[in-house]
Amino acid sequence: MHEAYAQRIVFGRGAARTALPAEVERLGAGRVLLVASESAQARVPLDGVTVSAVFTDVRSHVPVEVAEAARAAAVDADLLLAVGGGAATGVAKAVALSTGLPVIAVPTTYSGSEATPVWGLTDDQQKSTGTDLRVLPRTVVYDPDLTLGLPLDLSVSSGLNAIAHAVDGLWAARANPVSGVLGMAGVEALATGLVAVGMDGADGSARERCLLGAYLTAVAFRGTGGGLHHAVCHLLGGTFGLPHAATHAVVLPHVLAYNGAAAPRAAEQVARALNATDSVGGLHELYLRLGAPTALRDLGMPADRLDEAARLLTQVVPDANPRPVGPDDARGLVDAMWAGRWPD
Amino acid sequence: MHEAYAQRIVFGRGAARTALPAEVERLGAGRVLLVASESAQARVPLDGVTVSAVFTDVRSHVPVEVAEAARAAAVDADLLLAVGGGAATGVAKAVALSTGLPVIAVPTTYSGSEATPVWGLTDDQQKSTGTDLRVLPRTVVYDPDLTLGLPLDLSVSSGLNAIAHAVDGLWAARANPVSGVLGMAGVEALATGLVAVGMDGADGSARERCLLGAYLTAVAFRGTGGGLHHAVCHLLGGTFGLPHAATHAVVLPHVLAYNGAAAPRAAEQVARALNATDSVGGLHELYLRLGAPTALRDLGMPADRLDEAARLLTQVVPDANPRPVGPDDARGLVDAMWAGRWPD
Repeated sequence: MHEAYAQRIVFGRGAARTALPAEVERLGAGRVLLVASESAQARVPLDGVTVSAVFTDVRSHVPVEVAEAARAAAVDADLLLAVGGGAATGVAKAVALSTGLPVIAVPTTYSGSEATPVWGLTDDQQKSTGTDLRVLPRTVVYDPDLTLGLPLDLSVSSGLNAIAHAVDGLWAARANPVSGVLGMAGVEALATGLVAVGMDGADGSARERCLLGAYLTAVAFRGTGGGLHHAVCHLLGGTFGLPHAATHAVVLPHVLAYNGAAAPRAAEQVARALNATDSVGGLHELYLRLGAPTALRDLGMPADRLDEAARLLTQVVPDANPRPVGPDDARGLVDAMWAGRWPD
Repeated sequence: MHEAYAQRIVFGRGAARTALPAEVERLGAGRVLLVASESAQARVPLDGVTVSAVFTDVRSHVPVEVAEAARAAAVDADLLLAVGGGAATGVAKAVALSTGLPVIAVPTTYSGSEATPVWGLTDDQQKSTGTDLRVLPRTVVYDPDLTLGLPLDLSVSSGLNAIAHAVDGLWAARANPVSGVLGMAGVEALATGLVAVGMDGADGSARERCLLGAYLTAVAFRGTGGGLHHAVCHLLGGTFGLPHAATHAVVLPHVLAYNGAAAPRAAEQVARALNATDSVGGLHELYLRLGAPTALRDLGMPADRLDEAARLLTQVVPDANPRPVGPDDARGLVDAMWAGRWPD
């Protein structure tokens, strides 16, 4: 089941300058709370928008105290304008969840949060998430010009994370053809866009493809939810404190090779999206071109906990996974991911 | 600007049987008016759905007297269930427009009407159209199994019509990157799907790709509106009474070649969607494989009215067209379309 939600998507170079004021007016807003880090504020021209208040304490995973402070800042607002990456959108969503205020999102990374009704809050390191249509931004203004300065390493990790969402959706419990085709269109846009961004970070048309890919993979993932890849990343991140985006990059080719062997149609779709004859080979070429991380040991995973990781891995395999994962399979996967051995 | 609308998309082989009853229940409906021709009714199993009344006088372009009769049939209904092609969906939309009743659509062709809030009514040969969110089906159930018996010629004309929507959207006034990438994903799905359907009409996975393509191209076209191609088809259909779908097929390569010369990025997108190095060449190969019509003279266009057609053509060129169309250009286009001379 693919659920399409009502959302205005304004897309174009310069749109934050040319289209944002009209979108604010369209929602009849007169008292705008801008949710943006200081650096995001500095980068984004908001000439045509009258901002009544600003909330800058933007932090990932939205600690509850941040959400409370943002709600206090929003007490007189009639619109939340989130400018930045997933963290800024996340804070605005937390405010919308309790106040029902409309959100306009102006994304500056490839997090995709702006295209989903999923919120998250962290209380004492415990993260809770949920889905509520009130937090879905009414309007998203995608302006590739805002991402021209996004550093290459952040572009790559954010972009590969988005690619992983779409690939993992192909064998998720709620996999469906519409999400599949949207996700693969997103992978194609991101793969070609990231390679071009790698050559020239200020290539506006490449940046446009990356943002398009971020949007499409988020819409796809919203429909499917995650599969084995996300279960493994969640496990590794939670148990060993590995960095989120880089872990996604390392894990993806291994899950793709493992599951693709039992899900040939999914593998075929990924290969085609990567313009390659083979999905894992196509991903390899992409990783080489982007200099993407490939080994968990480089991310701080301790060598003496591989047994533990393999044992835990067998416990998180989703019921819907196209291929069972036995103890030996798990140990093989963990070893290869740790050492950075590219799968066959 | 791409406007996403709230709509549930249920997609899958057998979904009309397995998922439709729950979707009807979800809308709290107890008195369903089925809008479907007798042949569509015969083809679609509705075991799990209690139908209170049936309206079978389904006709294209929805004559006002048909709409009135359907409204009378709907007087006790709380849900409209449209099963069939664009005509059935159109009749249900006409009823929804005046009654606000929710619509569930179960499409059996590639018309795409189920994915748009556009309605149409014909009064004494005069067609009026409009856009109203009340007519957008709340839920669409796409079941490729229902299209296994769609005759090849209808599949091809309906599918090429959908491809033309997406291609023409690339240079339409409201062209935008999101609609563009959705449309091209639709073209790719339709092109590969139609070729496979041409080899085996009962290939369920090919039928699935065609329905996916119909959905995506309709969503894209809803965002962009039409360009030169649609203006020309409308002109030829209205002035010379040529058949709708076949006219679209004949006109498309000529507009693509003409506009593509001034819109190289659009041409490149079409080529990639057709998995070809050249957009017009890729379309040619598709036409040859599908046995698609290529000449207006075969559709009944009189040879002695080519001057008139060329003159009228120069008057309907959209302001946003990437290339001006002078009298000689127009005459060249009309001559080539009439004779079926494939453009360079």
